[in-house]
Amino acid sequence: MTDSTVDIEISRRRLLGTVGAAGAAGLALGATGGALGHAALTGPDDAGSPGAAGGLAALGSTEVAFHGTHQAGITTPMQSKGHLLALDLAPGAGRAEAAALLRRWSETARRLMAGEPAGSGDTGIALDAGPCSLTITFGFGHSFFDRTQLAARRPAALDPLPDFSSDQLDPRRSNGDLWIQIGANDGLVAFHALRTLQKEAGDAARVRWQMNGFNRSPGATAAPMTARNLMGQVDGTGNPKPTEPDFDQRIFVPDAGPGPAEHAWMAGGSYAVVRRIRMLLDSWEQLPLDKQEKVIGRRKADGSPLTGGTETTEPDLDELGPDGKPVIPANAHARISAPEQNGGAAMLRRPFSYHDGIGADGSPDAGLLFVCWQADPLRGFVPVQRKLDRGDALSPFIRHEASGLYAVPAAPRSAGEYVGQRLLEG
Amino acid sequence: MTDSTVDIEISRRRLLGTVGAAGAAGLALGATGGALGHAALTGPDDAGSPGAAGGLAALGSTEVAFHGTHQAGITTPMQSKGHLLALDLAPGAGRAEAAALLRRWSETARRLMAGEPAGSGDTGIALDAGPCSLTITFGFGHSFFDRTQLAARRPAALDPLPDFSSDQLDPRRSNGDLWIQIGANDGLVAFHALRTLQKEAGDAARVRWQMNGFNRSPGATAAPMTARNLMGQVDGTGNPKPTEPDFDQRIFVPDAGPGPAEHAWMAGGSYAVVRRIRMLLDSWEQLPLDKQEKVIGRRKADGSPLTGGTETTEPDLDELGPDGKPVIPANAHARISAPEQNGGAAMLRRPFSYHDGIGADGSPDAGLLFVCWQADPLRGFVPVQRKLDRGDALSPFIRHEASGLYAVPAAPRSAGEYVGQRLLEG
Repeated sequence: MTDSTVDIEISRRRLLGTVGAAGAAGLALGATGGALGHAALTGPDDAGSPGAAGGLAALGSTEVAFHGTHQAGITTPMQSKGHLLALDLAPGAGRAEAAALLRRWSETARRLMAGEPAGSGDTGIALDAGPCSLTITFGFGHSFFDRTQLAARRPAALDPLPDFSSDQLDPRRSNGDLWIQIGANDGLVAFHALRTLQKEAGDAARVRWQMNGFNRSPGATAAPMTARNLMGQVDGTGNPKPTEPDFDQRIFVPDAGPGPAEHAWMAGGSYAVVRRIRMLLDSWEQLPLDKQEKVIGRRKADGSPLTGGTETTEPDLDELGPDGKPVIPANAHARISAPEQNGGAAMLRRPFSYHDGIGADGSPDAGLLFVCWQADPLRGFVPVQRKLDRGDALSPFIRHEASGLYAVPAAPRSAGEYVGQRLLEG
Repeated sequence: MTDSTVDIEISRRRLLGTVGAAGAAGLALGATGGALGHAALTGPDDAGSPGAAGGLAALGSTEVAFHGTHQAGITTPMQSKGHLLALDLAPGAGRAEAAALLRRWSETARRLMAGEPAGSGDTGIALDAGPCSLTITFGFGHSFFDRTQLAARRPAALDPLPDFSSDQLDPRRSNGDLWIQIGANDGLVAFHALRTLQKEAGDAARVRWQMNGFNRSPGATAAPMTARNLMGQVDGTGNPKPTEPDFDQRIFVPDAGPGPAEHAWMAGGSYAVVRRIRMLLDSWEQLPLDKQEKVIGRRKADGSPLTGGTETTEPDLDELGPDGKPVIPANAHARISAPEQNGGAAMLRRPFSYHDGIGADGSPDAGLLFVCWQADPLRGFVPVQRKLDRGDALSPFIRHEASGLYAVPAAPRSAGEYVGQRLLEG
């Protein structure tokens, strides 16, 4: 086997050499990774995307840095393919096994995100392809801290989310000790990462649940545009922008936060809320367009508020129509979730759509793998979802089927450090 | 609702105008569609693909002709996303309802493949995007002809495939009266087509099964390369090329075939064999690389035969190793399926990979949505599969879980004709 393994590695390097050269133009477009110490890479804080203006070769060759300030996959432009999975530590596995696993995973994530094969026994699925903007992001669930005798270091921000009246959560597809988000602009590159990480879990952890998602392909639109979801709605207009002065403060845990010192390991990290939100498309698609638009409060064609303007125009929540009623109805989704109604939008939504064929009920098993990022879920997701839960006109057309909340620590600063080391060895 | 619908149509046209302009450079690269009478379109017989060298804008704007000689989606370059579905005519529906449905579907397929919204009640999911090489391909299963009192016009080529000893077929995910293949280089464009066609089936037909697939994204590799499957193998090396002189004769039903005159409606058509082939990845990935390569008969890194050369070098099936045994083992997949061992490869494989998460058995529910095209399944798929069934070293690592065989007639020649009209009204 040794000879063959060598061959694969040589082949991969040769191909990547080619890809790297072809990608130079593409990388020049968006890369400002110097701030992260990776001049040749696209850093996680870059707004640049191969979807905007790069040649197609840039799609394959675009590389996101594994080391840095924050983990990749939070502010990285959304990729066209994604996998979410949660694992539970195996019976008998504790802090030592978790630390060893995260060390293995970190080295593998670094290699795969750089377009290199896995360290040993690479499956070959991603051979020929560049890194394709692969990101691998790791998080810890509430139960992880009990399993590893680290409960004293568990942040209060990981306290279970409140129950929402409209929840129909499947515990088998919720929560979990460990969480991984994989994103890439190629389905085989993403699947390769999924299989590799699953295999490396070995005896230390078992997959609890796993979900597949997708987004628009780079280049599908003539210019970069806000994404649409499977209801056909423009989705993500109100997202905070990395260029806004308070962006970091809303999304990332500060270096010297107000919390107790034992939570300092989360400095530079973020909290991910994950919800599998099924869309009841058979019902939704029967609703006439004008009624759909009243449910949302925005026009379907371009995402503009019903009170006029363009997608980015602020909705006029006070404007009344000829009938004396608000033009944007009192229960419109856009009104209830509007930043100004919730003390400022303190979460960054970065979802994938999902479609798992036809469900047991004969309807499409499709919707949104909602992923949102925030420095504090109690100021981000929770207050907005509480309001939506009470009076969102969209509620009859969606169903929250699974839920997770994970602490996603900062990225390792450099080779030798692994994700979560500041927690596990701090 | 009328006003809003108008808005959507205007918006879509405006966006498509932009896409069209941006795509001009891309279209110039591959389009030779003049042979099909669509100078501005990528015809189904073109080898050109947006993956090769076009700018990213070409990914969105690339359009495949619906009208022409053969249906699109057969020789069209493989797209990164796909949906396969089969429908059965509803109880009470017969030839008239089928004809009306195919007329509706044909008009919708033409519109969607041109990047236009569906005729009425468009869901909006594909808004903003160009056609993204969308293809929609329609076929008829064996049972369709009984349901429509057209048994006399059913070609013998549609006779049920023989049983293979290794089959573990699920009838609920096999066969069906009507079959649709959707492919696109964007997941939302493909899903939009799926939902639109499902909705248009109305009371005439019900979905029998539906599967989702994917392939490598255009641009993921530095240059176009043969695809890999989820086992990591280069897959498709031996495919006949449209430039070969006997390509049409192998893949498409001739204008004046040897068959009875009542089957003339299939002139210019092709037969699709569809197999859901699950890959037992947990077992496969435990096999060392050198053993994997002996199972296949080719090197994983570059797809070259074990007897040397490059991917396109002919395997030397007679060469013996130092141990006196054939270098390419007697039961190697590549030997058994080699064209020269089967009277010339008379099928064009054009599969999608699939991954439906974790199966009920805890293993990945992943593999290949094998789709192959031929003028005659008894000279294409059947003899090769018969040999593979008897002695393929790959058999322990795969499982055929579903099967279908469909007659895919020629494309409508021009607007006004619908797919299958020559059968239903001939």
